[in-house]
Amino acid sequence: MKKKTFRSLIVALTLILVSLSFSAGAVAQSSGKLEPLVIQQQGSFAVGGTVISTPGTFNPNKPFEPAGQTLHGDHAYVFYQKPVNARKYPLTFLHGAGQFSKTWESTPDGREGFQNIFLRRNFSVYLLDQSRRGGAGRSTVAMNLTPNTDEQMWFQQFRLGVWPDFYPGVQFPKDEESLNQYFRQMTPNTGPFDMDVISDAIAALYARTGPGILVTHSQGGGPGWASVMKSPNIKAVVTYESGSGFPFPDNEVPAPIPNGFNKQLEAYGVPMDDFKKLTRIPIVVYYGDNIPNTRHENPALDYWYAAVQMAEKWAETVNKHGGDVTVVHLPKVGIKGNTHFPFSDLNNVEVADHLSAWLAKKGLD
Amino acid sequence: MKKKTFRSLIVALTLILVSLSFSAGAVAQSSGKLEPLVIQQQGSFAVGGTVISTPGTFNPNKPFEPAGQTLHGDHAYVFYQKPVNARKYPLTFLHGAGQFSKTWESTPDGREGFQNIFLRRNFSVYLLDQSRRGGAGRSTVAMNLTPNTDEQMWFQQFRLGVWPDFYPGVQFPKDEESLNQYFRQMTPNTGPFDMDVISDAIAALYARTGPGILVTHSQGGGPGWASVMKSPNIKAVVTYESGSGFPFPDNEVPAPIPNGFNKQLEAYGVPMDDFKKLTRIPIVVYYGDNIPNTRHENPALDYWYAAVQMAEKWAETVNKHGGDVTVVHLPKVGIKGNTHFPFSDLNNVEVADHLSAWLAKKGLD
Repeated sequence: MKKKTFRSLIVALTLILVSLSFSAGAVAQSSGKLEPLVIQQQGSFAVGGTVISTPGTFNPNKPFEPAGQTLHGDHAYVFYQKPVNARKYPLTFLHGAGQFSKTWESTPDGREGFQNIFLRRNFSVYLLDQSRRGGAGRSTVAMNLTPNTDEQMWFQQFRLGVWPDFYPGVQFPKDEESLNQYFRQMTPNTGPFDMDVISDAIAALYARTGPGILVTHSQGGGPGWASVMKSPNIKAVVTYESGSGFPFPDNEVPAPIPNGFNKQLEAYGVPMDDFKKLTRIPIVVYYGDNIPNTRHENPALDYWYAAVQMAEKWAETVNKHGGDVTVVHLPKVGIKGNTHFPFSDLNNVEVADHLSAWLAKKGLD
Repeated sequence: MKKKTFRSLIVALTLILVSLSFSAGAVAQSSGKLEPLVIQQQGSFAVGGTVISTPGTFNPNKPFEPAGQTLHGDHAYVFYQKPVNARKYPLTFLHGAGQFSKTWESTPDGREGFQNIFLRRNFSVYLLDQSRRGGAGRSTVAMNLTPNTDEQMWFQQFRLGVWPDFYPGVQFPKDEESLNQYFRQMTPNTGPFDMDVISDAIAALYARTGPGILVTHSQGGGPGWASVMKSPNIKAVVTYESGSGFPFPDNEVPAPIPNGFNKQLEAYGVPMDDFKKLTRIPIVVYYGDNIPNTRHENPALDYWYAAVQMAEKWAETVNKHGGDVTVVHLPKVGIKGNTHFPFSDLNNVEVADHLSAWLAKKGLD
């Protein structure tokens, strides 16, 4: 047999068995030993961004003079993996404030995050570092970085508990190393956060990948909605704990919601034609546990109370105009104890199962 | 047949065929269509770093006051992939100045970089973002970031050519998008470059992974040598275009080498006991093409002339003390046209083949 034919046969048999292995191994994650991931293609690239330049002529023998030189910045950075026999729509993941693509990789205690979980469910997975964050650090706008001690604030804002106590039943590992890893998955803005710059890059990504599903977290919610208004290739949005950046029709913007974290949680207005784009796709908005249903003296809890109020108003407004937004409060569907990071919490497979069911229900898988 | 037994059988058959597929598919890369990557495990974590804190007591209801709060910073960030049937020693990759882990991922024109190439050769692969760079951006020391136009300088320093001309025969794609991607794989320091902080993190990584091989690029060379002096688990070093940070015995430090890029290329001294650690492992130092063998009016070329002089002195010194350093000038072994990034150049499979042969020769695979 010729070497090439032999290889093709082996590859074909491998792929058949890998498929069988996936079907048979659906429960493998909970049984400890994981099956190998079979990746048809993986890689990375920059997308979007702009170029600035200094007037003048570059002198090759005086390279430290900025004249005639350029800077390519404000792009997003993307690492992607495509499994064999990928489903129709890839999942693109956008992190929240202070985070980067790591959000979706290994959990703080080293379990698999949504990157691996959804690869195993045969989705292509694109992980973004938004413009001016992480690997997409080259910014066209200056930024001063100062090392501020702020982690006890984040511990509360991300709803692990009220420092130094974890919430009873919280789905976060209690060992010291997990908290160490959790704090170290933060990385600063290297330029001002700019929803417009970020959503331009995401729209450019969708122009490249074609139709897909966008999954956002927290602060990423805002650029996510803006991206939908810029790209018809976003066929659905899944957002975890979106807290700000909700767009309303210009004449229906609700009053800011006062809260103890950022004083006023504001929405913003967009032309009706843009807003209507949000009504044409299915959207699910998830919230975790330990969010009060009245105002609260703790600024973190008061903020999440306000965020949920705003999200409910927004869902109602989109749906009133013909949209399909579902707000899921995880504790109300029996999934308890989740923090601001349900996708990396101890029960993240259960959280993923809920998402898989929603995608199936909407015909998106 | 029980479901679990059936799954085990399928998995076993899959792994056998995957192994065959790898053996049979060794030439697949050059034939266009690539075989799937079969990954036993992949994930990410932070390693090393420190914790700073502000004196006082944290008040849960006043989370914006820094008192009693911490900042975890200065760690490195690692993304790893382990293929099925991995070889004994993983390869850990450290980028150079202005770069991050992306250096080793897709090339500017979208071909596979060393991450995928060496996964296909059954090495486990660890990609680092060094402390205060990329995803490891949380720094304990302040930094002001300003968007300086400097890319024509880098075009020359990275030896693509003398702007705006590419060197004849250079192994870099000439299309506009490749250069766009290349410039966008830069990302700034989010704190001062600190060889000691970075090598502490790398030593911590090797304490976690066990014995392995370190592959460094350019500025990464310096932290690489420092890491060898801190960790007995580094069993070999491969460095591409190391330009600075060579350690010599305290009483054998050579004079700085004048050059038009950074005025003086300096080496530094370490106690003999530390230096001797560099003599106990095999080391290969690679340089690409278009490096002059005399001084040059162009600062970039003058710098690389100086860097090679220093590297040759260093290799001679390590070998004189019983070491095993090989300096490979790629053009002298028939591999022509390489830039400062041989591992992502158009001929990077050939460059990888040379490395594979060296690893085999040293019994490291």
